[in-house]
Parts: sequence; C-alpha cells; structure tokens
Amino acid sequence: MKDDLRGSARRHAALPDPFAFWRGGALHRAEVAFETWGELDAARGNAILLFTGLSPPAHAASSDLDPTEGWWEEMVGPGRPIDTGRFFVICVNSLGSCFGSTGPASIDPTTGRTYQLSFPELSVEDIARAGYAAAQSLGIETLHAVVGPSLGGMVVLAFAAVLPGRTHHLVTISGSAAASPFTLALRSLQREAILRDPEWKSGQYGPGAPPRTGLRLARKLGTITYRSAAEWTQRFGRTPVDPAWRTADPFGPTFAVEGYLEAQAERFVASFDANCYLYLSRAMDRFDLSAHGASVAEIFRRAGLSSALVIGVESDLLFPIGEQRALADALREAGVPTDFVSMPSIEGHDAFLVDLPRFGAAIGAYLGRT
Amino acid sequence: MKDDLRGSARRHAALPDPFAFWRGGALHRAEVAFETWGELDAARGNAILLFTGLSPPAHAASSDLDPTEGWWEEMVGPGRPIDTGRFFVICVNSLGSCFGSTGPASIDPTTGRTYQLSFPELSVEDIARAGYAAAQSLGIETLHAVVGPSLGGMVVLAFAAVLPGRTHHLVTISGSAAASPFTLALRSLQREAILRDPEWKSGQYGPGAPPRTGLRLARKLGTITYRSAAEWTQRFGRTPVDPAWRTADPFGPTFAVEGYLEAQAERFVASFDANCYLYLSRAMDRFDLSAHGASVAEIFRRAGLSSALVIGVESDLLFPIGEQRALADALREAGVPTDFVSMPSIEGHDAFLVDLPRFGAAIGAYLGRT
Repeated sequence: MKDDLRGSARRHAALPDPFAFWRGGALHRAEVAFETWGELDAARGNAILLFTGLSPPAHAASSDLDPTEGWWEEMVGPGRPIDTGRFFVICVNSLGSCFGSTGPASIDPTTGRTYQLSFPELSVEDIARAGYAAAQSLGIETLHAVVGPSLGGMVVLAFAAVLPGRTHHLVTISGSAAASPFTLALRSLQREAILRDPEWKSGQYGPGAPPRTGLRLARKLGTITYRSAAEWTQRFGRTPVDPAWRTADPFGPTFAVEGYLEAQAERFVASFDANCYLYLSRAMDRFDLSAHGASVAEIFRRAGLSSALVIGVESDLLFPIGEQRALADALREAGVPTDFVSMPSIEGHDAFLVDLPRFGAAIGAYLGRT
Repeated sequence: MKDDLRGSARRHAALPDPFAFWRGGALHRAEVAFETWGELDAARGNAILLFTGLSPPAHAASSDLDPTEGWWEEMVGPGRPIDTGRFFVICVNSLGSCFGSTGPASIDPTTGRTYQLSFPELSVEDIARAGYAAAQSLGIETLHAVVGPSLGGMVVLAFAAVLPGRTHHLVTISGSAAASPFTLALRSLQREAILRDPEWKSGQYGPGAPPRTGLRLARKLGTITYRSAAEWTQRFGRTPVDPAWRTADPFGPTFAVEGYLEAQAERFVASFDANCYLYLSRAMDRFDLSAHGASVAEIFRRAGLSSALVIGVESDLLFPIGEQRALADALREAGVPTDFVSMPSIEGHDAFLVDLPRFGAAIGAYLGRT
C-alpha cells in the first residue's frame, strides 16, 4: 500500500502479530484502515463499529479531513441516523479488501512480494476480528453497537459469535446467517468470470494489467442482482442507450440499461483488485453462522447482546427477506429484544444505499432507543 | 448442416427464396427443420404449430422414428395434454438455431462459407414466419393453434401480428410483448461473456474451437435465472459439491449447486453454437410487439383469434408474471376470449419444463375446449 493512496482521514491500526486466520494461516505486520467521526466519550462507551459491503472503502461519510462524499453520506453525521453528535463512529475497510487494509493486493512484509494467492483463506470471522482490533487500537474494549449492511451484515453476526460480550447492540442489514444456493451460484459465476479471464494468470497479473474482462462481467452481474426488476422498469424501461455508449459492434449496447452497466463496470475495474474480490466473495459463500454453536439461537444467547435490529428488503434477490426474518426469530428465541423491519423498498439488495428515508428512519429510531 | 446430424424423425421445409428478414437482409435456399406427431386430418384443420425456447431442437417428444426423449416429452403424445390422438403437431427448430434450421452456423449456399456474422439480423418475427412456412410445406394454411414457451411464447405473439388469420387459437407460455430492462441486462451480459472470450474471434471461430468460456458463463447465468431461489434452497441447500466436480483450484466448486451449473454448462457447450446464441438472444431483446400497431390490443384485434391461453409463473425472474397478465388484459380488451393462468410453481421461468402436472392440466383443459 502506498502512502499517497491514503486519504487524509484514513488511519491504520496494526493487527496482533501474527494475526491467525479462522480457517488456518496467519498474517504478519497486517493492518486495517479506518476512519472515525464524532468524539469518543471519557468512558469509551459510545463507539459504533461500522462494517461495509463487499466493495466500499472506510470512507462512509465526509469529514473536515476528507470532504468528499462517503458511501453512506446521508446516514452518518451530526443529527443523522447514525448520529455523530452522540456516537463515535469507526468505519473499517474489510481485512482482505484493497483500500488500505491488508489484502491479497498488499505486499507481504515477510517476502517483499504481493500476496496474491499466498494470502490465507479469508473468512467473515477474520473481518470481524480485524475490525475489533481497530476499535481496540483506540482503547475501546466494548462497542455500543456494531452495524453492517450486506457483507457487513454477515460480519456483525460473526462478531457476535467470535467476540461475545464485546458489543451491547447489533444492527444487521440485508445480511444472512448463511447464503442460499441461488446466491452461491451467482457469486460462483462472478468468480469464474475472473478465474477464466486469461489476464488473471492464476492470480499473478501485474499492477497495470488486471483481468479487466472478468472484473467487468463480475461487476455487471453484481449490479444486476443488487437491484430489482421493478426498479429498473421504472428507471430505464426500454429507452435506447445513450449514443456515448454506442459501438460499431453488431451486438453492442442497444438499451439504456446496458450503458448503465458499462459505467458501473468501468468504475469498478478502475478501483477494485481482482484477487481481493475473489477472496471476499468466497468468504461470503463459506460463511455459516451455525458453525459456531449448536444453533443460531444458542450462539446469540452467548453473545451478551442487550438488543438487536434486523433489517431486510422484500425485493432482495441475493439475501432474501426470509433470511433476515430467520435471524430475528433466532435473536428473539435467544432472549435478545429485537426489532425486525421488512422494508418494502423496490431497490433490492442495494436499498440500504438508495432508500435512505426508510433506512435512516429505522436505524435512527432504533439507535435513539439504545 | 451434415446429413448424419439429422435425426430420422427430422424433416426439412424449404423457405421462400429469397426469405426476406423483418429488419432487412435475406436468406437464399434457407430451410427449417421440424418434426411431426399425429395425423393431419383431411381438412388440414387440426394442426398445432409448436415453437421452442432458445435452445431446444424440434424434437419435442419421442416417436417411432426417434424414440429418444424429447424436450416436452410428457406434454406431447397420444392422450397427453397436447393430444396427438386428436392434433397433428409440428415442432420447428427456430430459424437462426443450429439443430437443422438455417442459422449463423450454416453454410451460406451463395458463398460456400459459414454465415457467422454475415447472417442477417434475426428477429422473432422471422422465426414466426419460418415456422409458418414449415406448416405451409405440408399444405396447411391455417393452424388450429400456435403454442410456445419462453422465446416460443414471444414467437406466437409475433405470429399473431405478422400472420393475422393464420391461427384460430394461441397459447403463449412465460412469454412477453417486450422484455424488461432487468432481462435485457441479463441477456446483454450473457452475450458479452461470449463477445469478450478471445476464442470468439469476432465470430470467426473454427468448427472445433468454439468460445467455450463465453458459452459456459452465458449458460450458467441462464441456468441460474431460469430457476428460483426457493426451488434451489429445497433442492441443493448448502450441500457440498460432489467430489467428481472438485478441483485443486482454491476457488473451485465448493457447493452442490456449483456442480449442477458445471454439468449444465458442459452439456450446452457441446451442443450449441455461440453465434446462433448471440443472434437468438439479441432477437429476444429487440422484440417489441407494440411495433406492429397502435397498441398491443389493436394488434390482437386484427389477429383473427377465436381464443387464447396465457400462462405465466409467479416465481419467474426473467419474464415476470406482470408481463403475461398484461398480455391477457390486451387480448381481452381486443375481444379475444382469453384464459389467464398465474402458476404458483416455484421453478421460475423453467417451470413449463418441470411442473408438468400444473402445465399439462392447464394446456390440456384449454385445448380440450377448442
């Protein structure tokens, strides 16, 4: 990681050395990148640890140090649903990602070479523990709450399982205790698009020569499945593609939705590392909360939670609403006072990024009661 | 097309020469492959013309001439829902496909070379007219009914638009008057997987060197979107992959659903031509029934239909149930007595191939009343 890539708001926490991985292997001199908003109180009791989806960096919201818009800009700030007037918010770039945290695209300090496929098998549990290490680096032992959408919604579940008693409250958004075979199939196909790109070179591609085609296809499939048919019918219909995306290719873009996919894919290829993508995607597939105990309810019973909020979206194809309902049921069975919100948003899995009025209201109201 | 690839039940009908395409261009000495079941009555009034989905051949069901199982085996036969004791059934391989009908993989008789991308732009209307030519080659001017699922469900709509008065009844199954942007996006991505495979070679790949990777990815994505999350949860859960599909690759198949996708992809690559796939897929995207008149209802009003059956599946992601409901509404608005069946099947778009009890009952009952 080069220093010039570090935003001025970005800080780094060293992980315990060695940092042993859940499924075996270890990292040396590893770190995670994070940003913070608000003030830590004297008792160090007002911290919220925020985990991200698969692709965002730690820059959840703007700040004096970095005024650029964050990935959850309208959610995090003074007077916003995650109110930095009251809470000290820490957002971590997932371990295994490529925005300042150690991942497959980082240099292995023990060899001086990029990890690539020598990076150990990453699990959702490792991401949870690395995020907790960032909080500990600030002197925080117990979080007021852990919050996360999508992959982050899985990470907070793993946090409850492997770090019992380390958070009072938990907010899991569009997450799952274990992905369904439909979602496994889609993610497997996204990875295959990268693996079969000749430019992937078994993970040994050079810094300026990523497997662009594989990343493009993977991201386009992601973009499609993050949304819903109903939303796109409203948004794009069968409008012809913007002329800027037209090509001479007889099978090139015809419809507006194809131009949208192009723009999404190009942005992703320019910012995300293919091996990091493979590691994070596989970690989501293999995550299974039930591996941590006799039952999911039994795991939550040991987690020491004072309350929880579970949010799901009725139009979510990837993390279907039944999976969040099952989580809420297990939390209640474990005796954890739990709010369950079934969002009628039409934006599918990505609704937490788009339907801010609904999500903001639910999260703000819940945190206000904690 | 080699004679040794022709099943003994397969017959061929010459198309009018030249055969002008709906969007321009023409074929010379083109033909379509078809099979038939049952007996044509003396008045030539008992014929049903059956169109297929994107990938099947004309072999809908077994017969004395070809006892192998067909793609709709339980639907077509004596005493079956499409009763060959009463009807003379003709199933055509779509124009543009690669199972005996002229398509991009055929030899252009005017040049002696494979068409590849010199094949004119195929439309759903061309497939309808070529199918009708097969019926005409048997002396049939008016069909008792035209029937089709998926792509075939679009083809029968095009048939009604471009061949008014040529069928008394119409059965459209999991079809659409025009695909939604969600479906356009998925098909665009399937095509892109082929187009970006270096082995595609701008369509100039040799007979033994197809763009395997692109076809594999396209078919896997098709297979995923043809089904539903609910079905796969029941069928596969998170069962580990069969050891036969395991590889040393650290990102290779882990779950049973991945082995299933592998098997589907391998079968498809071995049988389907990549350029044919591109042409048929694009034809589905660009089909828009409303281009044939002031409104869809006005088009049906001119079609001379005595009745219609519209079937959709509630779990269909690709051809959502609202699209079939809209077709039924337009038919009724046009004064065509119409049955609409909203199938609660959990098998998604492919339910017509799987949920035979429900589909058989609906189709058999409808045809029984015609």
